[in-house]
Amino acid sequence: MRTIFWDIEKNVVNMIDQRLLPETFLVVSYQSYMGVAKAISDMVIRGAPAIGAAAAFGLALAARESKALNLEDLIADLRVSSSYLKAARPTAVNLAWAVDRILSKVSKFDGSPDALRQFVLDEAQRLADEDVRINKRMAAFGAELIADGDTIVHHCNTGALATVDWGTALGVIRTAWEQGKKIHVLVDETRPRLQGARLTAWELGQYGIPYEIISDNMSGYFMRAGKVQKVFFGADRVTANGDVANKIGTYMLALAAYDNQIPAYAVVPTSTVDLSLAHGGLIPIEERAQDEVLNIQLAGERVTPQNAKARNPAFDVTPARLISAIVTENGIAYPPFDTSLARLVTTG
Amino acid sequence: MRTIFWDIEKNVVNMIDQRLLPETFLVVSYQSYMGVAKAISDMVIRGAPAIGAAAAFGLALAARESKALNLEDLIADLRVSSSYLKAARPTAVNLAWAVDRILSKVSKFDGSPDALRQFVLDEAQRLADEDVRINKRMAAFGAELIADGDTIVHHCNTGALATVDWGTALGVIRTAWEQGKKIHVLVDETRPRLQGARLTAWELGQYGIPYEIISDNMSGYFMRAGKVQKVFFGADRVTANGDVANKIGTYMLALAAYDNQIPAYAVVPTSTVDLSLAHGGLIPIEERAQDEVLNIQLAGERVTPQNAKARNPAFDVTPARLISAIVTENGIAYPPFDTSLARLVTTG
Repeated sequence: MRTIFWDIEKNVVNMIDQRLLPETFLVVSYQSYMGVAKAISDMVIRGAPAIGAAAAFGLALAARESKALNLEDLIADLRVSSSYLKAARPTAVNLAWAVDRILSKVSKFDGSPDALRQFVLDEAQRLADEDVRINKRMAAFGAELIADGDTIVHHCNTGALATVDWGTALGVIRTAWEQGKKIHVLVDETRPRLQGARLTAWELGQYGIPYEIISDNMSGYFMRAGKVQKVFFGADRVTANGDVANKIGTYMLALAAYDNQIPAYAVVPTSTVDLSLAHGGLIPIEERAQDEVLNIQLAGERVTPQNAKARNPAFDVTPARLISAIVTENGIAYPPFDTSLARLVTTG
Repeated sequence: MRTIFWDIEKNVVNMIDQRLLPETFLVVSYQSYMGVAKAISDMVIRGAPAIGAAAAFGLALAARESKALNLEDLIADLRVSSSYLKAARPTAVNLAWAVDRILSKVSKFDGSPDALRQFVLDEAQRLADEDVRINKRMAAFGAELIADGDTIVHHCNTGALATVDWGTALGVIRTAWEQGKKIHVLVDETRPRLQGARLTAWELGQYGIPYEIISDNMSGYFMRAGKVQKVFFGADRVTANGDVANKIGTYMLALAAYDNQIPAYAVVPTSTVDLSLAHGGLIPIEERAQDEVLNIQLAGERVTPQNAKARNPAFDVTPARLISAIVTENGIAYPPFDTSLARLVTTG
């Protein structure tokens, strides 16, 4: 089953509720684009490629919801809906990329309002299908970087759940495993929302890939002990110089890898590369609610003093100097990234 | 109230149960040395100086528990008890240091068995009293390193709860605050047992020092954003070359500080300096139960898949090259530590 998919009969968007895994596997349906925007900001669905697809299907819902009787009004309604969808989360560029890609085609569309409604849905479906194909291509490139016997530290969740299917960094690991390489994954739990401990551990269990969970602050210990050969993560936005914005903790993980001469790889579709930004300092970093840090789970017990305050930046920027290579569906970019990345993006 | 203290009337050792804070403040009593050994390994009491004092009071209980009628038999019994107490946790050298310090005096003792029983208790009490005085001296030295307006990242708990009273690194912060310096503490939560989020946050709240809690993987983000001026932590063992074994996560924290030219200070009594070990690679690193990582709290909800495995090294070693200075009760050691540390230890 895909992480997100359109139900043709009911005309709703279905998503696996990622807040409930691994305890509960629940598929939830959305029939309004505002519901999808809230699902994105509440992290029912998360992962840069997955929220791109969610926004695309959200636009398809918006087109159906609009009562516009002529093309011009429908396009105007879609522009309003787009701004809500794009505002759901600021850091991952895939969200805006997916919405803008469909909007630019919409603005050139010539036909009836109902034909446009179907066109938006078809475009969303195409984007979702493409994501799966792109992930498989990245996985094939990236798997070459993994050797038989490697122990790999993996951050956050970048698997099927973070994409429409298969995954980015975890897709690479999965493909290497299917090629028969014996690998072991150290899954860092990824506080505050525990995407590693909950989602990546659950996926690896499904695939039968051996893993152990560690807390985020332990990866340096295992690197210094000589137990780690590779580090893999995804990204929410990569700038023209190769700086990588990704789930909070990526910077400290990449720093520890660098200090131990262990390669650190980002695996991203080219839709995650934002050539319009020169460097990572220009990426907006979302700061989320304190409760995610003060409590352990959303509905979980409070572990901190009653009047305690917290900070909760959801992402950080890892400078390009700490990134060994960036795997895309068009090939692998090596430093200096300012030339290698642009070449791969324009190839696409 | 001290973290650990002897009840003269009931002849028991009392400790604040640190597993229950901040929710519940409970003082528990121990009347057997085996109970104390278990309290140390279960982390009812934790923090290198505090478990040193606990082992010392444990020996006082062992002396009372022994039914030996002559001095020789009592000393033999104390040696057996010592081995249990020293085995309770392997990494912090203070445990063995406290036990060995009392044992070496015991072996020279001349008097009745009951006089020796009283002597062991007096020695434990002296060690506990000394710890408080030593912390205050370290705090005075260390506070000089803190400037008005500093934002400080603090790891684990190194306050009154980690010592007999006042604290090591947190004692420095407390003294700087009492000197009128306006400081702000970013408390990293310190997975897996959350000593920062639970204990340090609770202590800072008691002292009225402003703080915010962050997850361990966030400190690098705030450093890169220019928000952090100093990093402070304690230690469980410092080797002759200045390598610092401390709560897991210290290495990655110190690495991030180094990458951002932010000074990282270890604050330790000289009893934590182990000149017998040349470097940190020789320090035994305790690996604790998987449950601490798989679950969030000891009795808390499971957040990971049912058949997931975890790793749980409790400490790591931060190489001396990442340490800016080591604050002791005899003054501050700066690199090269192989000469500066030895000078401060032998001064004591």
